[in-house]
Amino acid sequence: MSKAPSLSRRPPRRFWGWGNADAALSEREHATLKGMLAALESRYASRPEPRLDEFTLPAPRVTPSANLAALFSATPLDRLNHSAGKSYADCARMWLRQAPTPPDWVAFPEDEQGVIDILDWAQSNNVAVIPYGGGSSVCGGVEAAVGDSYAAVVSLDLERLNRVLEVDPVSRAACIQAGALGPELEAQLKPHQLTLRHFPQSFEFSSLGGWIVTRAGGHYATQQTHIDDFVEATRLVTPSGVMHTRRLPGSGAGPAPDRLVLGSEGTLGVLTEAWVRLQAPPRFRASASVHFAQYKAAANCVRAIAQSGLNPSNCRLLDTQEAVFAGVGDGRKAILVLGFESADHGLQAWMARALELVSDHGGTYDAEAVSRSMSDQDTIEHRSGAAGAWREAFLRMPYWRDPAVGLGVIMDTFETAITWERFADFYAGVKTDLSRAIKKATGQDTQLSCRLTHVYPDGPAPYLTFATRAADGSVASALSAWREIKQAANEAVIAHGGTITHHHAVGRDHRSGYEREVDPLFRTMVAAAKHAVDPKGILNPGVLIDPVNRPVGITGALAK
Amino acid sequence: MSKAPSLSRRPPRRFWGWGNADAALSEREHATLKGMLAALESRYASRPEPRLDEFTLPAPRVTPSANLAALFSATPLDRLNHSAGKSYADCARMWLRQAPTPPDWVAFPEDEQGVIDILDWAQSNNVAVIPYGGGSSVCGGVEAAVGDSYAAVVSLDLERLNRVLEVDPVSRAACIQAGALGPELEAQLKPHQLTLRHFPQSFEFSSLGGWIVTRAGGHYATQQTHIDDFVEATRLVTPSGVMHTRRLPGSGAGPAPDRLVLGSEGTLGVLTEAWVRLQAPPRFRASASVHFAQYKAAANCVRAIAQSGLNPSNCRLLDTQEAVFAGVGDGRKAILVLGFESADHGLQAWMARALELVSDHGGTYDAEAVSRSMSDQDTIEHRSGAAGAWREAFLRMPYWRDPAVGLGVIMDTFETAITWERFADFYAGVKTDLSRAIKKATGQDTQLSCRLTHVYPDGPAPYLTFATRAADGSVASALSAWREIKQAANEAVIAHGGTITHHHAVGRDHRSGYEREVDPLFRTMVAAAKHAVDPKGILNPGVLIDPVNRPVGITGALAK
Repeated sequence: MSKAPSLSRRPPRRFWGWGNADAALSEREHATLKGMLAALESRYASRPEPRLDEFTLPAPRVTPSANLAALFSATPLDRLNHSAGKSYADCARMWLRQAPTPPDWVAFPEDEQGVIDILDWAQSNNVAVIPYGGGSSVCGGVEAAVGDSYAAVVSLDLERLNRVLEVDPVSRAACIQAGALGPELEAQLKPHQLTLRHFPQSFEFSSLGGWIVTRAGGHYATQQTHIDDFVEATRLVTPSGVMHTRRLPGSGAGPAPDRLVLGSEGTLGVLTEAWVRLQAPPRFRASASVHFAQYKAAANCVRAIAQSGLNPSNCRLLDTQEAVFAGVGDGRKAILVLGFESADHGLQAWMARALELVSDHGGTYDAEAVSRSMSDQDTIEHRSGAAGAWREAFLRMPYWRDPAVGLGVIMDTFETAITWERFADFYAGVKTDLSRAIKKATGQDTQLSCRLTHVYPDGPAPYLTFATRAADGSVASALSAWREIKQAANEAVIAHGGTITHHHAVGRDHRSGYEREVDPLFRTMVAAAKHAVDPKGILNPGVLIDPVNRPVGITGALAK
Repeated sequence: MSKAPSLSRRPPRRFWGWGNADAALSEREHATLKGMLAALESRYASRPEPRLDEFTLPAPRVTPSANLAALFSATPLDRLNHSAGKSYADCARMWLRQAPTPPDWVAFPEDEQGVIDILDWAQSNNVAVIPYGGGSSVCGGVEAAVGDSYAAVVSLDLERLNRVLEVDPVSRAACIQAGALGPELEAQLKPHQLTLRHFPQSFEFSSLGGWIVTRAGGHYATQQTHIDDFVEATRLVTPSGVMHTRRLPGSGAGPAPDRLVLGSEGTLGVLTEAWVRLQAPPRFRASASVHFAQYKAAANCVRAIAQSGLNPSNCRLLDTQEAVFAGVGDGRKAILVLGFESADHGLQAWMARALELVSDHGGTYDAEAVSRSMSDQDTIEHRSGAAGAWREAFLRMPYWRDPAVGLGVIMDTFETAITWERFADFYAGVKTDLSRAIKKATGQDTQLSCRLTHVYPDGPAPYLTFATRAADGSVASALSAWREIKQAANEAVIAHGGTITHHHAVGRDHRSGYEREVDPLFRTMVAAAKHAVDPKGILNPGVLIDPVNRPVGITGALAK
């Protein structure tokens, strides 16, 4: 195998898991992991981590044209890093030393012209192109699994398009290149005292472009829940040319062009830059940790808050099991983490009314602690307190999942949204169906936990988590069980009336649910729109929809 | 001509203008009209209103199939009522006794199956279909002007699909048929103590379906400015079948299907029903009328409020000329009408902070009046006071435009949105360009007035109004001048960076601007999506885009 260095300019990534190659767990994280394994009656026995030399990759099937060669890498590290995303199954396959569909090449264009040139070359040579931002997909969205009808596959990594190009402080907006990761773009915005304030769990290793094309879920629990609401204009390189939209605060001129780019998951073009709406960093905060003895009352309280027009920035309801997982519960109470923030005004009136609603529904809280939470410190991040701790643990969670996967643990999450009037039945029904599916696949009795990550006047977005293990403790059995469980989760979410994804995207792994959720006529319209700009069907084939006349079907982690 | 009665079950409409056939002006409205004419140095000399027998309509070119015949009308009243919308030019042509493109038939389906049957028949017989809700389009969106390649044209009136089918009080949503006019749907929601609270100026004569497919602008000045935000699910009859979307509070599963229906303007299918998000009627209100000596300071204040997160329901900035038109100004001050409302909580803190921002920017207000405005009356509408009077005048405006048009007055509005950093130049540039165009077309010096109808953190939605007259006072000259002015307005709005429409839709009259604003690749994608469900191109041809392989081009009022 080639010993050439990676063409990536970022610190080397851990191809078999989350974070940079040198990421390490803290003592406390080790303890958390051990505790979880003990709870699963599983042993913590260190297993050797995957190494590059354990993977044998086939030689690239095509040669890039000479004028583009300097942008193309075929090093094992680059190819493995771009062979899949970061779902449970993606990581499990790495522990099994499986990388069934590595891309032939990874391309690192320097600029938009590079993207155009690469698409031109790919289109002329029947090469599939997988747009790649931070690579954090948990649904097979960046996996180089495109079926047999392409001459080769290139993963197109946008890491060099990572600059904030222009800031408009008056309108509070910025033009940012699509490859910028969360920390990169926030660092560039900070001197302007502005922030995008979009903090998905993948923040460190996901990009603006990825957020937009997957409709990522962000910081705010209400109102502007998705990145969608912050997109002012986009620039998309398609195989038929560059499509751009006009910077506008609002418009009613035909179907909204950006709304077709949002959620297109790399199938219509490669997003190269976008104008996004920014905010001033919050100066005022108020938060409360509310306890409920009854989950039903807690859910009704959240509904009342969601319908009140108070628009909290945080309104995260943890059920009893989730509270235990998060280390803040005793297994008997549901916990509502409620927060307001503003760059403009103190939040006493907002919090006071929300707490009236809390009391109306039987919630209890420490009034002193709420009072102490009312900060007006002029800091971009107020990291102390329970919210700060929760957030830090939230961002670190993918790190300690990695060794757990290697030890045979199956950890996964799925998320959805559902209207309020169906929520109670949905919550009970999905938990029952999934517990049954897990029992069937693994023999284990497993608790699912649920938190509400975002809430709307007409319904919540539940986020479910489970951890279990295969009966024999092997990764191979665990992966096999995961496939059954994942299919059952797709089925349960749709059968009980939810959406296949509120903010994790469709990719390859959610297609079975997507095709039941979304009308075939709409999918036909999207395929026709794609065909108009990508007539050869080279862009991310198999994700979301199949190209016209080019069936790909379900590939990737679920297909084996 | 046939003497058959109209098949419409609603009170007879005034085919040549706004409202029902028996609509009459009040004494005060007569006085307003006379004042306006005097200001234009024009005479108020009553001219005979258009009568049905002054129009000779060609015989219908096709015969509906026998099983559908009972749903089809070819009475002169129905055909004239459906020959165009209610723009200035639509009314002027009626005063000129011109109805150049009446539909051959008007169809009144009883239910969704009727819509399906009519589309089937039309598709088999090369008949164009114009979906028709309330008929209030001001951009040629319902005009039966489809060019020469169709065997006939049917206007498909949804007035019989006007019921609220289901109310979900828990999630606060309702399934409503698309043909329901504003007052119809509000009357049916009222017993449930819920409201859609969508009040465009056309409220009395526009329908839910029309609002959705044109992305109508509604009640709220901030956050949920368009009907878009209230759409939970849709049901669209296309020539290839019925497309429906799932009721969901939010989703990230691919491009949002409803967002392609929103703004489709009848070109993709006929919307038959939609689930929409409702609210409890407001119980708490606070309002202020703020005066500014400097428009620039006023605009900066509105920007600060729009970026504050306070989210007023009303934040309408009238420039000095607009304040005069509205009867609330002395020609020296700009006026900001600021309002908050809530069904949940008192608004003292919200208004207090907004008034701090007002004072920071040099605005003045009557603190006593603000204090008196703080109501918590349990009424669905708080009609007293300046806001109530303004609103009543707002809804009545189209009524007294009618006789003015007949007297040779050109009255029109255009609206857009623009980012804040370009707003000052836009405001000055568009006013200059339009004043010049009006002078050229009419010989008159004319003031344009401007109000901001909706505001976003990144920019306002300016709404401009002008009234002028042709040099010779004739309607024919006025219409001819209007064509020049309208083209100039389309050009100016786009050239200075705005959108061709914030909430009036594209239709036929805004296509010249739409085609400059929206990337050809996106329009190609929309046309391809249309072709996938409407392969013969029978739905509203010429609106928004041309059907694939079936050029229609710009028809209607601007084409002559």
